[in-house]
Amino acid sequence: MRPRKRVLPPESVYPVDDWAVVERKFTTEFVAQNETIFALANGFIGMRGNFSEGRPVFESGTFVNGFHETWPIVYGEDAYGFARTGQTMLNVPDGKVIRLFVDDEPFFLPTASLRTFERRLNMKEGTLDREVLWETPAGKRVSIKSRRLVSFEHRHLAAIEYEVTVLNADAPVAVISQLQMPVDEPEHDSDPRKARGFEETPLVLRLQRSRDARAVLGLQARRSGMTLGCGADHTIETVCPIRQKATCGEDGAELVLTVLASRGAPIRVTKYLTYHSSRGAPPEDLADRCERTLDRAAESGFQPLLDSQRAYMDDFWHRCDVQLDSTERRTQQYVRFNLFHILQATARAEGAGVGARGLTGQTYEGHYFWDAETYVLPFLIYTNPRIARNLLKFRYSQLDKARERALEVNTKGALFPWRTITGEEASAFFPAGTAQYHINADIMHALKRYVDTTGDEEFLHKYGAEMLVETARLWEDLGGWPPGNDEEFHIHGVTGPDEYTAIVNDNAFTNLMARHNLRYAVQTVEMLRDQHPDKYAALQRETGLDPAEVERWRRAAERMYIPYDEERGIHPQDDHFLEKEMWDFERTPADKYPLLLHYHPLTLYRHQVIKQADVVLAMFMLGNEFSLEQKKRNFEYYDPLTTGDSSLSACIQSIIAAEIGDLRKAFRYAFDAALMDLADLGGNVKDGAHIASMGGTWMAAVYGFAGMRDYDGRLRFNPVPLSKVQLDRLGFRLQVRGQTLRVVLEGDKATYMLESGNELKITHCDKEVVLLEGQAVTVASQDG
Amino acid sequence: MRPRKRVLPPESVYPVDDWAVVERKFTTEFVAQNETIFALANGFIGMRGNFSEGRPVFESGTFVNGFHETWPIVYGEDAYGFARTGQTMLNVPDGKVIRLFVDDEPFFLPTASLRTFERRLNMKEGTLDREVLWETPAGKRVSIKSRRLVSFEHRHLAAIEYEVTVLNADAPVAVISQLQMPVDEPEHDSDPRKARGFEETPLVLRLQRSRDARAVLGLQARRSGMTLGCGADHTIETVCPIRQKATCGEDGAELVLTVLASRGAPIRVTKYLTYHSSRGAPPEDLADRCERTLDRAAESGFQPLLDSQRAYMDDFWHRCDVQLDSTERRTQQYVRFNLFHILQATARAEGAGVGARGLTGQTYEGHYFWDAETYVLPFLIYTNPRIARNLLKFRYSQLDKARERALEVNTKGALFPWRTITGEEASAFFPAGTAQYHINADIMHALKRYVDTTGDEEFLHKYGAEMLVETARLWEDLGGWPPGNDEEFHIHGVTGPDEYTAIVNDNAFTNLMARHNLRYAVQTVEMLRDQHPDKYAALQRETGLDPAEVERWRRAAERMYIPYDEERGIHPQDDHFLEKEMWDFERTPADKYPLLLHYHPLTLYRHQVIKQADVVLAMFMLGNEFSLEQKKRNFEYYDPLTTGDSSLSACIQSIIAAEIGDLRKAFRYAFDAALMDLADLGGNVKDGAHIASMGGTWMAAVYGFAGMRDYDGRLRFNPVPLSKVQLDRLGFRLQVRGQTLRVVLEGDKATYMLESGNELKITHCDKEVVLLEGQAVTVASQDG
Repeated sequence: MRPRKRVLPPESVYPVDDWAVVERKFTTEFVAQNETIFALANGFIGMRGNFSEGRPVFESGTFVNGFHETWPIVYGEDAYGFARTGQTMLNVPDGKVIRLFVDDEPFFLPTASLRTFERRLNMKEGTLDREVLWETPAGKRVSIKSRRLVSFEHRHLAAIEYEVTVLNADAPVAVISQLQMPVDEPEHDSDPRKARGFEETPLVLRLQRSRDARAVLGLQARRSGMTLGCGADHTIETVCPIRQKATCGEDGAELVLTVLASRGAPIRVTKYLTYHSSRGAPPEDLADRCERTLDRAAESGFQPLLDSQRAYMDDFWHRCDVQLDSTERRTQQYVRFNLFHILQATARAEGAGVGARGLTGQTYEGHYFWDAETYVLPFLIYTNPRIARNLLKFRYSQLDKARERALEVNTKGALFPWRTITGEEASAFFPAGTAQYHINADIMHALKRYVDTTGDEEFLHKYGAEMLVETARLWEDLGGWPPGNDEEFHIHGVTGPDEYTAIVNDNAFTNLMARHNLRYAVQTVEMLRDQHPDKYAALQRETGLDPAEVERWRRAAERMYIPYDEERGIHPQDDHFLEKEMWDFERTPADKYPLLLHYHPLTLYRHQVIKQADVVLAMFMLGNEFSLEQKKRNFEYYDPLTTGDSSLSACIQSIIAAEIGDLRKAFRYAFDAALMDLADLGGNVKDGAHIASMGGTWMAAVYGFAGMRDYDGRLRFNPVPLSKVQLDRLGFRLQVRGQTLRVVLEGDKATYMLESGNELKITHCDKEVVLLEGQAVTVASQDG
Repeated sequence: MRPRKRVLPPESVYPVDDWAVVERKFTTEFVAQNETIFALANGFIGMRGNFSEGRPVFESGTFVNGFHETWPIVYGEDAYGFARTGQTMLNVPDGKVIRLFVDDEPFFLPTASLRTFERRLNMKEGTLDREVLWETPAGKRVSIKSRRLVSFEHRHLAAIEYEVTVLNADAPVAVISQLQMPVDEPEHDSDPRKARGFEETPLVLRLQRSRDARAVLGLQARRSGMTLGCGADHTIETVCPIRQKATCGEDGAELVLTVLASRGAPIRVTKYLTYHSSRGAPPEDLADRCERTLDRAAESGFQPLLDSQRAYMDDFWHRCDVQLDSTERRTQQYVRFNLFHILQATARAEGAGVGARGLTGQTYEGHYFWDAETYVLPFLIYTNPRIARNLLKFRYSQLDKARERALEVNTKGALFPWRTITGEEASAFFPAGTAQYHINADIMHALKRYVDTTGDEEFLHKYGAEMLVETARLWEDLGGWPPGNDEEFHIHGVTGPDEYTAIVNDNAFTNLMARHNLRYAVQTVEMLRDQHPDKYAALQRETGLDPAEVERWRRAAERMYIPYDEERGIHPQDDHFLEKEMWDFERTPADKYPLLLHYHPLTLYRHQVIKQADVVLAMFMLGNEFSLEQKKRNFEYYDPLTTGDSSLSACIQSIIAAEIGDLRKAFRYAFDAALMDLADLGGNVKDGAHIASMGGTWMAAVYGFAGMRDYDGRLRFNPVPLSKVQLDRLGFRLQVRGQTLRVVLEGDKATYMLESGNELKITHCDKEVVLLEGQAVTVASQDG
């Protein structure tokens, strides 16, 4: 078993605060990781938590979801069917920069004499607030207060209020507000998971406009052709005499404001920022859109933005909060921090996906993986079904690309790309990319959970059925019947979720998920045929569906081979996993983790060592396919082999540990998931937030501690004894088919209340509970 | 089974000629492939068969073995332990170019009115000869005769004699002789097996000297730092008045010769070319070496070069020729063409290796693979043991790099690179590169064959033992004992020779070869310990050898798991090969071959389909590990699955077909091997000659038709009935421990004669035959 990394309690860094993450002291040590922790985003625009002053900086980051450059993937050794189109989410012009000079002295945090310093990720209001009291070398005391927000209400808008007051003297003050073209950053380290550079600056300035305190830029990515408009406008409030000058150049735009500040008189600069992107519209059009957004924002002012942000957050927390009372007082903060970042990664994605790091960094080139469906969608389905729908619709929009990809890899149907922005496969290492065919089934699993939970049959009819047909086709063609054996359907040569093993036969997770995919396709097609003949006819037209193939899917599902070791009573991760040598954990020093940075893939592949939960994940997603005893034995076998080198692992390990009653591990892994970023467990939070683990934190609370399961849309709860996971109370709300269910676990009681809706039948510890609107039902949280 | 490609009889292209390949008609259709067919080389310098005129040209090629540029391999997705150093054999300045103008009209083959044209690869004399009679637009008849050679005797020297005579008139004649810097050629097609380009011209001109009719250049490769000197000198013989001018520039050097030619008076230009390369010497030093080579050459003249070349060839053919009488009259030509090109690829390699295409093209970047040991060394061991020794010594020189590589991939011992020039792994796709660990055992197998056949024990003591220790260490560490089973030693996660399957468990070829490697290591270490204690002590010092590890090697070899399917009585290619779906050959159109250009690796990996002989190759290399019945069953199982998409396949299929008595296939596959290039069976001869298949052609004759086997150095012959493979007579010589054995099969008789040496015991059809010097023993070629 991997030696356990000691989780540093982040209290010394981030003090206890249920509604905020607060930095009380500036230190260069945390500059990099706090750029991620304090990032703001609304699912469309993302801004890393860079300082207004532009420096010190680890990686300056401003992103627009889906705005990317492409590049031809170069292979040292090429082969047929390799992915061709590299895709990278681009850094866009940075509007966060507001530099300050007092007496011509620059304000620079590392050298400034700071009387007070506080930076606050204000999760209740959806803002990033900073208050600094700076004493200049000349002894002038300068108060600098700022609030930054990326609006949830106004998708294309961000704003910063920046207020400077020289408290004890008059002084000339200069404020330089910029909209800065991105600078190519040097690579910081050689972690192969990080983004690669471009030969040329990928972003070309096509248009510049400036007028008064406003500048608007039009840009285009060289190769993808995508266009971007962005702009900044300013309002200045002060009683002091000012001069201002706006300029535009190759480096971007800036407004220089010089003020003869009088003692105690505040200078307040409000900066409005807007971003619009497009695959086709000319930069001029986008610039016009920017002007309109800025017109509206400047006209209504900053306070209404704050108000709408607060209203959005109130609604979010009402629906989505997970309330915890714990002897460990910081738990509430950890959980809210995770939920807040999921919101930021997804809220206004609308036509785009959710990157592995959301909009907080460029790791993995900003690509969308299976994480979104597998780790983030469960939270969204139960709390924000509209956002969940948008994300599934986005996958549907890439179905044609998935059809093309299936052709490229010589299969029927559709194969969704392992990693992508555009819908084209962007994985340049197919054994851990394209070979992860399971992504097809992951998306269909999320589709089923969405439809079952929301009751959105229309989505299933209109989009889901077509995806089901094409994904089922892939499975039928990919798998097959071994020579001389038409009793067992096998799937060879695939990679499961665990990337420390590749290109194996009959990966248990893949086969189970493929069966689920095939069954759901059969069930959906038959339902349409029997109940909606017109939609069935349309589906046939759209896909050329042949009833004979549906029979083949049924048979493949019925005969799907699931590896099982009778002797040990466990499911081998793949058909030959148990034959491999054991990894020598004893002789693997702690500094050799994550293993992928120290061992050749071939070394990992030939050992029993696991990057992330694989069979254990299957036991969560398709738990009804396993007996409890199997779950125990599988967990006990695989958990010691699991390094958790992937941030996707801990939350799942926690959920299954909870189910089998290993509450010590359930707690520990949940804690790991919740603290993945705040305690920087992976050592790479500086590169971006681990959005999947954040979704996993919610799952660990709801599926793990509250023991919820939702096979076929029916909710079942089997809460763990709260005290064993160091909790006094756990409460959350779920949206189920338009109804709102409130669940509160407290001590040894569970209370279920249908806050809105007519009637909801749930199962608590194997007993049915019927809930009517407004009624609370309290039961013993544990059976017997 | 793959639909068989019809072999075009090349007679229409190359008429019957036992000692030459002749082109009687110029046609643009064959320009590309004839650049390979008519290539000249001596194992150090290589020159494609480009026309003197420089045009028309497919790929101009002049190479110096081992002279390469390096480049950082870029990965779209990188990981620990991936190969870092791309290496490419460079095109060097081209001295073949001699342009001709008569009446200021350029001589250009495609448009010239040619009264006669003949180009001849003169294999008896080791030259490329051309005779042309050109009628200019003005009706002047110009005879152009040239002979080109790359000297076997003088490693650094090539020469061209070029003679022009205006037969029926006086005319101004200009001859421009160049030493031309390489021009970056555009890529001709997108075959992923082809070389990649550089960002910058890799070769930098460092020095230019010119004097009289001589020019010398000094060059350096930008990144590898390797240096090159090259030079050209000319002598001119004519009675006509001449003017000459030598110049040097960025494009290289040229000599412009203008002649007022009188009717019937020949103008003879002799051009001497030299190349010297180094890893460290400054270009100035190399230029000096060039001057000395040119001094000597120009002083002695062209005829002595021709004479020494002829003497070398006489000796070569005496030792190496395979004489065939066949109803198919062209057979002799096919075989000699193959042998001649092996000589050209290897003769003076000396400190370098043998690239997959020799020195005839840049495919595979000029890298050295396992081909050299597995396909080329058998011929050399039996005919040119000194060259064989040089090549094995070259591998030894890269042992330290192999030790470093083993560390990089987390194993003990040494791992030879799958492809390389420098000794560093250059394979950018590890599933078909580094995963082919079998290269270690391939080299050790060649070592054993070399030592057994030559009796060169000193080589074993001095170099072989150390390689054996380090390669055995790798196997012991790579393989292991499955959990709970210490009776079977398994090797997981490797790729065998067949690249249509990758990263498998217990590849039969690999396990058999690893066992052979381990056993040979144990045997050698014990022999040294018992018989040469001083050498054993030295080996211990050099390698830190521990007697306990030798015991572990012995045990690993004893318990090596060899997959075997009892039911079918065959050896599965790997432990799970037989579980895979069958490839649908019926529905694979002929234009989809080679499959690797039309199917994704994952598609190939999950089917029973074979690029090249794998188990069948094991049955050749370690034939004493199989019963004849097993061989038959294995061959019958695998042969229909084998596409032969690799040129390494046919010769091996032929040998085993011969052994099991399938003589129709033995003949057909031998024919495929022999005609691989002359009939362009792979469709890519334009990119270079398939040297391994050429070695395989010799093997098909000697091991296949003559049924030779040499397990443990003892020669056994089991000739096939010659008439069944369309032969009347087959004769060849073998060098065995310093003795010369002549073997002649004729009709139903076999004659063995020890032409030099004392005594040699061989086995013919399971009966011992004792040969004494000068005695011929004739026996019935078939048993019973």
